[in-house]
Amino acid sequence: MKTLDRFVITDWFMHLQDRICQAIEKTDGKGVFEEELWQRPGGGGGRTRIIQNANIIEKGGVNFSQVHGILPEKIAQQLQVKGHDFFATGVSIVMHPFSPLVPIIHMNVRYFEVSSGEQWFGGGIDLTPIYVDPAQAQYFHQQIKHTCDLHDHTYYETFKKWADDYFFIKHRNETRGVGGVFFDRLGATADISLYQRFEFVKDIGNIFAPIYTKFMEENKDISYGKGEKQFQAIRRGRYVEFNLVYDKGTKFGLDTDGRTESILMSMPPDANWLYNYQPLPGSKEAATLAYLRKDVDWIGVA
Amino acid sequence: MKTLDRFVITDWFMHLQDRICQAIEKTDGKGVFEEELWQRPGGGGGRTRIIQNANIIEKGGVNFSQVHGILPEKIAQQLQVKGHDFFATGVSIVMHPFSPLVPIIHMNVRYFEVSSGEQWFGGGIDLTPIYVDPAQAQYFHQQIKHTCDLHDHTYYETFKKWADDYFFIKHRNETRGVGGVFFDRLGATADISLYQRFEFVKDIGNIFAPIYTKFMEENKDISYGKGEKQFQAIRRGRYVEFNLVYDKGTKFGLDTDGRTESILMSMPPDANWLYNYQPLPGSKEAATLAYLRKDVDWIGVA
Repeated sequence: MKTLDRFVITDWFMHLQDRICQAIEKTDGKGVFEEELWQRPGGGGGRTRIIQNANIIEKGGVNFSQVHGILPEKIAQQLQVKGHDFFATGVSIVMHPFSPLVPIIHMNVRYFEVSSGEQWFGGGIDLTPIYVDPAQAQYFHQQIKHTCDLHDHTYYETFKKWADDYFFIKHRNETRGVGGVFFDRLGATADISLYQRFEFVKDIGNIFAPIYTKFMEENKDISYGKGEKQFQAIRRGRYVEFNLVYDKGTKFGLDTDGRTESILMSMPPDANWLYNYQPLPGSKEAATLAYLRKDVDWIGVA
Repeated sequence: MKTLDRFVITDWFMHLQDRICQAIEKTDGKGVFEEELWQRPGGGGGRTRIIQNANIIEKGGVNFSQVHGILPEKIAQQLQVKGHDFFATGVSIVMHPFSPLVPIIHMNVRYFEVSSGEQWFGGGIDLTPIYVDPAQAQYFHQQIKHTCDLHDHTYYETFKKWADDYFFIKHRNETRGVGGVFFDRLGATADISLYQRFEFVKDIGNIFAPIYTKFMEENKDISYGKGEKQFQAIRRGRYVEFNLVYDKGTKFGLDTDGRTESILMSMPPDANWLYNYQPLPGSKEAATLAYLRKDVDWIGVA
């Protein structure tokens, strides 16, 4: 097994942030990420990069952070770990395009280490189309499955189910979007080294740019009207509900006094709440809501 | 001490809902509340009343509910009570006016009873102006203090501080608005009967309509522009953050599988998230953000 340390991981994540920002800027054709460097009083800091009012992207962030220091008691309890100090680094991405026909996307890859000796990777990638396009969802899941299968034939099924359970808006009884994969606490086992886990996480990180720039390209020029924008605002409201009520990353950030503007870059530029919104029966809005269920076989659906 | 039972309390709350809806409709001059009756599978139900796209009010709700049944274990732990069954009834109000010069208002009055014998009242009223007007905030607090003082000279100071601590957006280090009062677990003591607690809660419920219709009347015709609407959308975003991240009533509702659309009637019609919004120094937006602090002496401020 090759050696693996936090500096190698941190360095790889920083370059991932660079590469993804370049790919998005190139495909967008107009937007430029603005960078903000910040320091965490307790140790570490981050490199927040935000794109706003670009050509295709209305608001998005590609954030790198590397934080360390004393592990807050509340977090130690939640994670069920012992250890006085922690080290965490990762990249988090959320993209909110102008067009309701270009999907919202989210990805996170992260590494966590506690002074008692535990080390693990976590992360995930999931797609939130305003209108579900089964062919797009199929392609998305195929690419992810292909990447997972290169590493372990149990990964896709396990992590796809985990994403369905995680990206779920319980009070709406609907999923956030068409899912993807979610995984956490991937440490070394008898069979799998930490190095192999890192290789998997790297491959997940690497598929983000080709997949999303393809979706940007393919859908950016499709015309839409006021009705689609209204539905986008409602679906963005559901995105807000998920992130503020359920998302563990958001809670972790707010609980550890992270930089609020970096954490909440995931919020959409705007959102609507119509009381008791119900789509017309037979409409494409109704079709999308019917798709927002767990355990859809996206690879077999289209 | 006069007798007091749950039916008397429930009846009073239902009439409070009626009276407040009538007062708002009369002042608005156009809007009519739409009513939805709902039943809770575990016991009880509610009467949701929503006003949308009226003359002054863009979106608002005046909700009555009376729920009972088996107390969920999670809630019993949170409340630190023993008792297999519970009974809860109350009225909750949130008003989002069109004009950024008419403040958002919230009020809740509630009664809770556990089969082990504990009984208490809770509630509160707080004001969230888009632009803080010290004279308006002063009047609001004067009216509340006057009402509190009729019952107990410690109430206003204690419950005003409680509201400052409760209606606080920790990750923004700012209060939701200019506060008001918040109180909970007001049960019978050696000095104060449950009947006296109810009389206090009734008086709080009764001041809602005269105070808020006055603010509607006084501010509805003041002209405003695009800048004020943009700031309103940002301030509405903060309202969303408070309700979804911190509000115990929202959490209680979602955790007990309450009716989602009734719980989330508190959401504004729309909201915005601009990355790293900072008001111009010396602007009226900056003046408002400077006011959003705990422990402001609103009665002495203007």
